[in-house]
Amino acid sequence: DGAVNLDGADVMTVKSIYIVSDGTGWTAEHCVNAALGQFDYCLVDRGCPVSTHLFSGIDDAEKLLEITKQAAKEGAFFVYTLADPSLASAAKQACKLWGVPSTDVLGPITEAIASHLGVSPSGLPRGASGLPLSDDYFRRIEAVEFTIKQDDGACPQNLAEADIVLTGVSRTGKTPLSIYLAQKGYKVANVPIVLGVGVPRTLFEVDPKKVFGLTINPLVLQNIRRTRAKTMGLSSDGRSNYSEMNYVREELEFAGRLFAQNPLWPVIDVTGKAIEETAAVVLRLYHDRKHICTMPRISKRY
Amino acid sequence: DGAVNLDGADVMTVKSIYIVSDGTGWTAEHCVNAALGQFDYCLVDRGCPVSTHLFSGIDDAEKLLEITKQAAKEGAFFVYTLADPSLASAAKQACKLWGVPSTDVLGPITEAIASHLGVSPSGLPRGASGLPLSDDYFRRIEAVEFTIKQDDGACPQNLAEADIVLTGVSRTGKTPLSIYLAQKGYKVANVPIVLGVGVPRTLFEVDPKKVFGLTINPLVLQNIRRTRAKTMGLSSDGRSNYSEMNYVREELEFAGRLFAQNPLWPVIDVTGKAIEETAAVVLRLYHDRKHICTMPRISKRY
Ligand SMILES: Nc1ncnc2c1ncn2[C@@H]1O[C@H](COP(=O)(O)O)[C@@H](O)[C@H]1O
Ligand SMILES: Nc1ncnc2c1ncn2[C@@H]1O[C@H](COP(=O)(O)O)[C@@H](O)[C@H]1O
Ligand SMILES: [Mg+2]
Ligand SMILES: [Mg+2]
Repeated sequence: DGAVNLDGADVMTVKSIYIVSDGTGWTAEHCVNAALGQFDYCLVDRGCPVSTHLFSGIDDAEKLLEITKQAAKEGAFFVYTLADPSLASAAKQACKLWGVPSTDVLGPITEAIASHLGVSPSGLPRGASGLPLSDDYFRRIEAVEFTIKQDDGACPQNLAEADIVLTGVSRTGKTPLSIYLAQKGYKVANVPIVLGVGVPRTLFEVDPKKVFGLTINPLVLQNIRRTRAKTMGLSSDGRSNYSEMNYVREELEFAGRLFAQNPLWPVIDVTGKAIEETAAVVLRLYHDRKHICTMPRISKRY
Repeated sequence: DGAVNLDGADVMTVKSIYIVSDGTGWTAEHCVNAALGQFDYCLVDRGCPVSTHLFSGIDDAEKLLEITKQAAKEGAFFVYTLADPSLASAAKQACKLWGVPSTDVLGPITEAIASHLGVSPSGLPRGASGLPLSDDYFRRIEAVEFTIKQDDGACPQNLAEADIVLTGVSRTGKTPLSIYLAQKGYKVANVPIVLGVGVPRTLFEVDPKKVFGLTINPLVLQNIRRTRAKTMGLSSDGRSNYSEMNYVREELEFAGRLFAQNPLWPVIDVTGKAIEETAAVVLRLYHDRKHICTMPRISKRY
């Protein structure tokens, strides 16, 4: 999905979803993306093409009504997150008036939390409270910076500082997974496993509870490596046999033996898994092992 | 907020939020975080401490009911996203039965999209459809890998390949912002501006429509640099005057002159802004400039 301009013909067939927020719009966009997952079966073959239009920073009634009017013209569905209750109810009423179907994504959960906590929501959009960015926020940025520096085994001497260490052969997704976890606040290091080349000694010196092995189906890996070899021009790391089936199998077996010798490292099969799915598995295991719980969960204090 | 184990005393005072998903739980967590933003004013001083507990991969009734029961014991609020309608209604009924307040985060938006598109939701959780990962998904991973390689001006010869180029002095958040944008599918390069050191010539050769200058209040920058200098031991890049006010001011003025000489580059003040907020501003401007629209928006096709 890339950026598009609707032309006349499109307007007739493409179903529009308007996403409106007084903040960044990322929360509502995340929800729309997850909900659209339920319609993948007809989206992928373009049986029902959908366009989303994200409007961020909408914090006054005038802009809001203009967008609502445009949504009505385009026959769009209108999704919004507006902290100011009077703006939220203006959106609801304008949509009703102009026959635009609409959903308030956060209204219900915010109200439910309010009565759970016994306090009222501030009604102020993101950034308007004047509260400083939290320590947790700066910790997450530090985790991203740490993680980038350790990428691809760059600083094996720093493994001890990492919260999580990922290891696996090339193209098991170590880098994007590391970055994804880093943005959630974990300092991640990743160590490549290369056939015939040892891993750094420090990998065996760190707490095995924080090490995770990644594996993948050999056919799928070969496919990914071939595609990569094509876009990079020959093999990405100078190994010409990088995507040959024998080599792929041998390298995965080499990794498998390393994992077998370190039975405390959980091994995660990433075949067909999106990065965020593997991240969910890693973090569930990570928190289970840190806090022996009756039920697997990730807990946080606010 | 770090991981916590509830002990007896905590259970009495801390309000729990249970987050349950048949997928990763990241969507519901994102919503809870945004909604909790409305209560920042009482969370920050721990006036009303809150704990979240994330349960991912909950795709059968037995696990679901066990968690619901535990939520009842803890007096928790229960937030869920469950694609299977029978599981979703089981959650709703169990919560009702045991007096647990609950919110279905995606149910309403999924139903609304279904009637908008005139098709039914699959009812299958993430990963269960057997559909392959999309091209768009692999493009996002490629963007992350590209962006990491270009970090901190590493490959000025590759600026032409980037979708977005960020430039600014040290500690304006170029790296985390680049990574955030990369995960949304944009190839980002960032070019540091250092007092007395020129920027690479290639910066002036790329389409100015994709270059963004970052600036920040000098006092705030000095503070950030001081904190960094402390954690890194002296100055992070060997410049001992790195966080001295005169130096900070001069360097920002140096950047300001560069920006003035390139009036087509928008300059974004990142003071007090979270990375995701700056990202929203960058992408709004980026899409406005690519597609002259009557209303600023970011559009995507699915
Ligand atoms: N830290 C925060 N404080 C107050 N409101 C917030 C915060 N984060 C997000 N929100 C609100 O939650 C909704 C979603 O935010 P966003 O994802 O930025 O669109 C918007 O209405 C924001 O104003
Ligand atoms: N690509 C997808 N296909 C089907 N369902 C999805 C998809 N992505 C997310 N979902 C569903 O949306 C909800 C939120 O997903 P998650 O963020 O993984 O917890 C869960 O009920 C998932 O099963
Ligand atoms: Mg939003
Ligand atoms: Mg979820």
